[in-house]
Amino acid sequence: MPRPLRIAVAGLGTVGAGVVRLLQQHRALIARRAGRELQVVAVSARDARRERGIDLAGVRWQSDPLKLALDPEVEVVCELIGGEDGIALALARAALAAGKPLVTANKAMLAVHGAELAALAEERGTTIGFEAAVAGGIPVIKALREGLAANGIRRVYGILNGTCNYILTQMRESGRPFSEVLEEAQRLGYAEADPATDIDGYDAAHKLALLAALAFGGRPRFDAIHIEGIRQVTPEDIRYAEELGYRIKLLGVARMTAAGLEQRLHPAMVPAQAPIAQVEGVFNGVVVDGDFVGSTVYEGRGAGAGPTASAVVADLIDLARGRRLPVFGVPCSALADHPVAPMAAHVGCYYIRLQVVDRPGVMAEIAAVLRDHAISIESLIQRGRNPGRGVPIVLTSHETTEEAMVRALAQIGRLPSVLEEPRMIRIEPLEAGPGQPEGGRRP
Amino acid sequence: MPRPLRIAVAGLGTVGAGVVRLLQQHRALIARRAGRELQVVAVSARDARRERGIDLAGVRWQSDPLKLALDPEVEVVCELIGGEDGIALALARAALAAGKPLVTANKAMLAVHGAELAALAEERGTTIGFEAAVAGGIPVIKALREGLAANGIRRVYGILNGTCNYILTQMRESGRPFSEVLEEAQRLGYAEADPATDIDGYDAAHKLALLAALAFGGRPRFDAIHIEGIRQVTPEDIRYAEELGYRIKLLGVARMTAAGLEQRLHPAMVPAQAPIAQVEGVFNGVVVDGDFVGSTVYEGRGAGAGPTASAVVADLIDLARGRRLPVFGVPCSALADHPVAPMAAHVGCYYIRLQVVDRPGVMAEIAAVLRDHAISIESLIQRGRNPGRGVPIVLTSHETTEEAMVRALAQIGRLPSVLEEPRMIRIEPLEAGPGQPEGGRRP
Repeated sequence: MPRPLRIAVAGLGTVGAGVVRLLQQHRALIARRAGRELQVVAVSARDARRERGIDLAGVRWQSDPLKLALDPEVEVVCELIGGEDGIALALARAALAAGKPLVTANKAMLAVHGAELAALAEERGTTIGFEAAVAGGIPVIKALREGLAANGIRRVYGILNGTCNYILTQMRESGRPFSEVLEEAQRLGYAEADPATDIDGYDAAHKLALLAALAFGGRPRFDAIHIEGIRQVTPEDIRYAEELGYRIKLLGVARMTAAGLEQRLHPAMVPAQAPIAQVEGVFNGVVVDGDFVGSTVYEGRGAGAGPTASAVVADLIDLARGRRLPVFGVPCSALADHPVAPMAAHVGCYYIRLQVVDRPGVMAEIAAVLRDHAISIESLIQRGRNPGRGVPIVLTSHETTEEAMVRALAQIGRLPSVLEEPRMIRIEPLEAGPGQPEGGRRP
Repeated sequence: MPRPLRIAVAGLGTVGAGVVRLLQQHRALIARRAGRELQVVAVSARDARRERGIDLAGVRWQSDPLKLALDPEVEVVCELIGGEDGIALALARAALAAGKPLVTANKAMLAVHGAELAALAEERGTTIGFEAAVAGGIPVIKALREGLAANGIRRVYGILNGTCNYILTQMRESGRPFSEVLEEAQRLGYAEADPATDIDGYDAAHKLALLAALAFGGRPRFDAIHIEGIRQVTPEDIRYAEELGYRIKLLGVARMTAAGLEQRLHPAMVPAQAPIAQVEGVFNGVVVDGDFVGSTVYEGRGAGAGPTASAVVADLIDLARGRRLPVFGVPCSALADHPVAPMAAHVGCYYIRLQVVDRPGVMAEIAAVLRDHAISIESLIQRGRNPGRGVPIVLTSHETTEEAMVRALAQIGRLPSVLEEPRMIRIEPLEAGPGQPEGGRRP
C-alpha cells in the first residue's frame, strides 16, 4: 500500500472534530476504500485545551492555521473554520498557492470567491473538494460533477437549508406563526441565536450558487441570485397552499431561460405530491433535471457533524485515489459567462393573497388591474362574509412575468378597498417525477 | 487537449443506440467535462442495415463483437448486448483480458460472474464501470463506491424494478388484480411479453447483489439472495396495507445482521409516509443508511434509453479522466466473504391474512398457535360477519423470526377452520428519514 495521505485540519468545531473522529473510527475501512491510509498530521484551532472527544496524540498543533498550508509534511488542507473572508479565505489561498488541494465545507467563501480560488487551483495544478458545502452528506456535488456529467442540465432546484425547512414544516403541522416557531427552534438548537443567515436565505443561496455553477458550467455568481427568506410566510398562506394542493418550501432554483441563467431563492409553492414536497423537517433535498436522465432526486441530512464529516472524508478519499477534477467540472477557461436573467423577466405562475373590504365591486376592480397587465386568473378563493370589513381573497394566476405581476400588485395595493399590502408567493411547476408517473414506453 | 478516448460499442439496441446518440448530441459538452473527446470508433450489432437514427459514418462495423476487444484502436469496450452468459460474458472476459476497461449495463452477468470479472480486471490493471446496471441513470453506484465511502453501511434497500413498481402502483390505484394489470402493462409496453425476469424478482435481485457487494465490500452473491416476486400480491393485501398505514413495494434489502449478510428481495410493507413509499410508477428509488451520513435517498428513472445512456457515458467520462477504482470499491483481496444469513434467521414484523370459517373459537385456535411459536400479535382486523362461512382475518405481528413465522403459518394452514393457504408479507421498518423528522441538535 502506498504511503498515507497527510492531512491538515484547520478548525476543530463540530465539523472539524467530526472529521477527525470519522477518520479514526473508520481508519481501516477508509484505507481499503482509498487505497492508502488517511492520516491527520496537523491541526489548528483556537483553544488547544478544549475537550473534543478525539485523540490528537502525535498530531502537530499549529496556533496559526496559515502555517498548515506551508508545512512541508501536509499534502491536503481541510478548511473547516468557516466565514466568507478572513482567515478561511487566507488559508484557502495559501494552500492552493502552495499547490495543495483544499477540502472545505465553506459555501459562503466559495459562493463569493469560488471563481478566484478555482483559477488559482488550476494555475497551481490542484483542486478544491467541496462536497460538504452543499446538502451535507448527500453526494450531490459528485452527482452533478460526475454522475450526471453526460447530461445537459435543464434545471436544478432544492431545499438547501434545514433550519428553514424545519420552521416551515413546524408551521404547517402546528398552524403557529413564524416568530413563535423560530423561537422554539432556537430553544431546541435547530436555529442559531442570530438566525438571519438561515432564515433570510443567504445560506441556501450560497449553496445554490455552487449547484448552478456546476450544473451550467459557469462561475458561482452569488451576487446574481434573487434572494427572499421565509420571514413573510404566514400560517394563512400555508393553509391556503394546502387547500390548493401545494406546500410552501424555501426553494433554490437555477434554470437556463431565454433571458439567461435564472437563479432565485425564495418561498415557493410546490405540488404536495412532488418528491421535493415530501422533504420535511431538517432534511435537505435536491432535484436535478437532465436532458437524458430525466428528473433525479437526492435527499438526506443537510447538516450536522456526521453528514458533513462523511462528505469531507469522501473528498479526501477521492484525493487519496488521485482523482482530481476541475473545481467546477470544466477548465476555468471553459466556464461560461451566462447572461444573468433579471428577476423581472421570470415567467411563472403566482399565488396572491389580498385582504379587501367586503363590498360589491371589489373583485371587479382587482380583475381589471390584472387584465390590464395581461395576467389571467387560474383559480380564486373568496370565502366568508364580513360586509363592509376585511375578508381575504386568494388568487392563483396562469403564467405571467414577474414584471407584470409586480406592477399589478403595486397598483392593486393602492386600491382603497385593499386593506393590506398584497402577499405574493411564486408557484414552481415540477415535472413528473417519482410519484407522478408519466406516459412512455418500457420502464 | 489530449487525444480522444476511443470506444467500441457492442450491441446497438435501445441502450446501445442511445449511448451513440448521447455521445454525438453532447460531443462538445462531454469533451469539456471529460477533458478530451469521447469517440466511438467501432460497433457491433446483429443487423448492420437496421435504421437506428444514429450517424455511424466513419465507425467500423464488426460482425463479431469479440473482435472489438482485440482491435488495437479500441481503448474501452461498452458491452450493451445483455444476457448473463454467452457472447456478453465472452466479450467482457476478452476486453478485460486485453487490459481494456469494460463499461456495461449488464446486471445479470455481473451479479453472477462479477467476482471472476473483477479479479480478471484487477489482474490486468483495468476496471469495470457498471453505473448503468443498477437503477438506470440514478448515480447510486457512484454514491456507494465514492460519495458515501467514508461510512460503514448499515443497510441498503430499494425499489429496483420499474415494471413491478408500475404494476403495484396500478393495482393500488385501480384496485384491479395482478393478472389484469400485468396484461395491460404488456399492452402498453411497460412489461415484456415474457415478464418472468421482472415480476418474479430476478432482475431486481441482480441489482441488489451489486448494491450489497459495494455496500458491504464483498463479492456479489446472487445465489445467496432470498427471492420472491409479486405474483402473489392481491388487491386485498394492498387494501389492508393502506388501512394499516403501509404500501406494498417489491423491495430489495441488504443488511448486516448477527447471523451474517442478509439479502432478500420480496414484496414488503413500508410505512406510507416513508420516502421509498412515495416512489411510484416506473420509477426506482434506493436508500442507503450510513453510520455517519444517516439515511440518504436516491430516486429517478430506473430504465430506458436516455437514463441508461446517461449512466454509461458517465462511466466513460470517468475513464477518460483516468479515474479507475477497484470494481467493488476495494481490492479483490480485501473483499470479505460474509457469512450468508439464512432467511430462517430473519427477524422482523409480519402481516398475515387468513380466510377462516366464521364461528366462535377460531381466533382462539389461531392465537394459541402463535403463542406456541412465541409470536405476539401487534394488531388484528376481523371485519364483517358471515356465520359458518369464510371471513378474512388480518394480523400484524411484533418482531419474530422467519423460522417461527413459517412454522406457525404451516400449522395454522392445517387448522380445519382455515380455508385458504395463509398469506404473509414482511413489514420493513424504516428509520426516520426525510418526511419523518427525528430529534437531535442543530439541523
